[in-house]
Amino acid sequence: MQSPFNTERLSRELTNLMERTRDRQLRLAVTGLSQAGKTAFLTSLVNQLRHAGLEAQLDLLPAAREGRLLGAQRLTQPDLGVPRFPYDAALSALNAKPPRWPEPTRGISELRLQLRYRPAQRGWLTPEFSHLTLDLFDYPGEWLLDLPMLAHDFDSWCQAQTQHNGVHRQALFSAWQTGVEQLDPAAEADEAQLADLAAAYADGLKQAKQAGFSDLQPGRFLLPGELDGAPVLQFFPLPDIELSTEQRQALPENSVYATLAKRFRYYQQHIVKPFYRDHFRRFDRQIVLVDVLGALNAGPERFEDLSRALQQLMHSFDYGQRSLLTRLFSPRIDRLAIAATKADHVTPDQHGNLVRLLEGLLAEPLKDLRFADIPVKALSLAAIRATQAREVNQQGQRLAALYGTTLEGEEVLIYPGDVPARLPDEHFWQQQGFDFPHFRPMGSSHEALAHIRMDAAIDWLLGDKLA
Amino acid sequence: MQSPFNTERLSRELTNLMERTRDRQLRLAVTGLSQAGKTAFLTSLVNQLRHAGLEAQLDLLPAAREGRLLGAQRLTQPDLGVPRFPYDAALSALNAKPPRWPEPTRGISELRLQLRYRPAQRGWLTPEFSHLTLDLFDYPGEWLLDLPMLAHDFDSWCQAQTQHNGVHRQALFSAWQTGVEQLDPAAEADEAQLADLAAAYADGLKQAKQAGFSDLQPGRFLLPGELDGAPVLQFFPLPDIELSTEQRQALPENSVYATLAKRFRYYQQHIVKPFYRDHFRRFDRQIVLVDVLGALNAGPERFEDLSRALQQLMHSFDYGQRSLLTRLFSPRIDRLAIAATKADHVTPDQHGNLVRLLEGLLAEPLKDLRFADIPVKALSLAAIRATQAREVNQQGQRLAALYGTTLEGEEVLIYPGDVPARLPDEHFWQQQGFDFPHFRPMGSSHEALAHIRMDAAIDWLLGDKLA
Repeated sequence: MQSPFNTERLSRELTNLMERTRDRQLRLAVTGLSQAGKTAFLTSLVNQLRHAGLEAQLDLLPAAREGRLLGAQRLTQPDLGVPRFPYDAALSALNAKPPRWPEPTRGISELRLQLRYRPAQRGWLTPEFSHLTLDLFDYPGEWLLDLPMLAHDFDSWCQAQTQHNGVHRQALFSAWQTGVEQLDPAAEADEAQLADLAAAYADGLKQAKQAGFSDLQPGRFLLPGELDGAPVLQFFPLPDIELSTEQRQALPENSVYATLAKRFRYYQQHIVKPFYRDHFRRFDRQIVLVDVLGALNAGPERFEDLSRALQQLMHSFDYGQRSLLTRLFSPRIDRLAIAATKADHVTPDQHGNLVRLLEGLLAEPLKDLRFADIPVKALSLAAIRATQAREVNQQGQRLAALYGTTLEGEEVLIYPGDVPARLPDEHFWQQQGFDFPHFRPMGSSHEALAHIRMDAAIDWLLGDKLA
Repeated sequence: MQSPFNTERLSRELTNLMERTRDRQLRLAVTGLSQAGKTAFLTSLVNQLRHAGLEAQLDLLPAAREGRLLGAQRLTQPDLGVPRFPYDAALSALNAKPPRWPEPTRGISELRLQLRYRPAQRGWLTPEFSHLTLDLFDYPGEWLLDLPMLAHDFDSWCQAQTQHNGVHRQALFSAWQTGVEQLDPAAEADEAQLADLAAAYADGLKQAKQAGFSDLQPGRFLLPGELDGAPVLQFFPLPDIELSTEQRQALPENSVYATLAKRFRYYQQHIVKPFYRDHFRRFDRQIVLVDVLGALNAGPERFEDLSRALQQLMHSFDYGQRSLLTRLFSPRIDRLAIAATKADHVTPDQHGNLVRLLEGLLAEPLKDLRFADIPVKALSLAAIRATQAREVNQQGQRLAALYGTTLEGEEVLIYPGDVPARLPDEHFWQQQGFDFPHFRPMGSSHEALAHIRMDAAIDWLLGDKLA
């Protein structure tokens, strides 16, 4: 007869115990450009975890399906100087009459959750309950595109900012363009003139955002907060400088060129770096949210613009040994999800295409991730479902349709159209336009929020920690 | 015959030359509670110095009277991350139709001026022109009263916050008071409950400010900016804790008492100290602005409250070897002005009393300053004059009167009343009320702003540097 106290088993049990009893933390980065759905995702994530033991629909998350996940409690966050993620305000908006989407994020906020669960396999040393601390934070998507700026110096940034612009985008910057063409980089800087031109540039960025463009730098120009009026936000790219590197570097400190370059460097050092150092320095898991449907709606120039912005962004993170972020702050990430959000805005039969289109958009970064051997899952989801999938009978055919309420308050039953399975080419844009509708949230009053595949996302991002 | 090259004269000339040619800077602290008139003072100061060679009326400033002060130019400020003082916006408001007072300050701003002048006495080595760099900054007066908080620990602050409150003030905090009385300092802290009570406390502070009170801590509760919703702004004093120091210190880390005390310390270290370190660390001259007339208008409880706030504040600065600010940041100040602002809101014959009343309000701090041998000048001024002094004939008597436009737009010719020459006692408040009117600015369109004794203030604060 074998003794129950054999050393191998004891050793395994002890390791298990240590794992269970030490303070286990998971820091999750929710990455997404403005409008990608970060706030909705975080609100739903907190909501699903809090209702996990009760009415939340989380069948794709084993710990919840097996009844082992008992719920989540908000803890005091570590940094007292950062606002708390406004979960209650977001829920109030969703449950208002009529229901509203939560306000877009205008600053940084944090949330710390403690998840309580029963371990799947219990030995005689395993405690009955375990805890996992989950650190989340939210921030304006506008600021995210500042990260790729760290890879530039002022000259290369000027080039990058002016080489890819299509006609629609250029038109939005015409006031700035006219002014900057008359500016002599070698002349003595006039504070007031630079301030005016920077305001015109910021105005162009704001209009471009309004018009559906994504590749917008510098991000703080869109949401300046307490930096409004500071010289660090008063620079802009200089297009077509006809000066050699030596000539540029020989320009006096008070020249237009040197003043703008100095402010660019100050922006990198004092605005961008601290943001990433404080918030992206250490995270274990990441989900990248992309509003693919919004970009399809906006047409080819803006779709191309989103694609470029995402590639820049993912390239900055890019997870290999030599990535920008690794060199700067050495984050360790062991798992990544990419998600096309707002999947409830198309019929379920289109979700497959949505994921394939997302994979097409992120093809280059996905290669890097595969090379770095970081597991990635691509999915489509709706963090907070705003529609119901229906079927309609048309001339004897059963067709998929969506039932929901538009932002204007009209109840509709529609077929919103097909999502292409690959990146649309020029021919495609000419033949077919996209016009996916926008829906308002359904309003749920005190129950868990309805969703699509939030459980799959949660399982991928933290399911293994609840085993 | 004596050689012109005698060594004594040469040495004097060389010292003079060094003094003139090195980069001379003066950092001026404009100190004042909310509503004291800091923004108007700074706007007028910049305006007078810029118009010094031209139409500005600066007869009490010798360098201007003698035609040696040639004007001032705005330079690039040293810290690119701080907004520029919105001088142009302030002038636009003053010159709008109808004219408006500039917006109150909601954040920190800076301005660097370079003054150009001809030295009074020229030797053969003195350059024809000299420069003086003047660094100015503006900030919300609400934040100034945070400085005295640095002298406290949480317990002594709780006592200080609850011992002086009169009936009017107490009534404004009744919602908070009801809640805090049911709070057990030893109980486990409930995040949401503390957030609600802190919001009620902040609400009391806002109402108290609205009602004319001055002694309002913590200042960031009134203007939270980007800290809105952060735990560091979610504390408040605990009145009447019936626990000994030992009992308090033995309370667990997650108790109400320990949580609030921790946030208080975080507020001191991460909010208050950086503000003073970055902005009050080094200044050479200081002017303290006081809205004496506003306090007289507001009645005895609020007048007493202002007096207490000013004493606390000046005591923190208090200029001796062992002052709080000296110990923390070692500033060196060699000259101070105290000024009763808005002197144009009473007739000129009352200006003497206004100064005496100001000296009465600041009697205790003035003793400290005399003891520390720091020269102080007390004066009354109007940075931006809103009225004209007139004389009216009443039954054969010539009486002083003011002509101006009220904030509501009514043109009036009035005698606004007498200013008491000493601190009013109870008897006095019962016999006589005060009701000084508020005037809108006159609007000046492109000329130097009209003022009362700005030249005297400028002469005291920097006249010796323009000799």
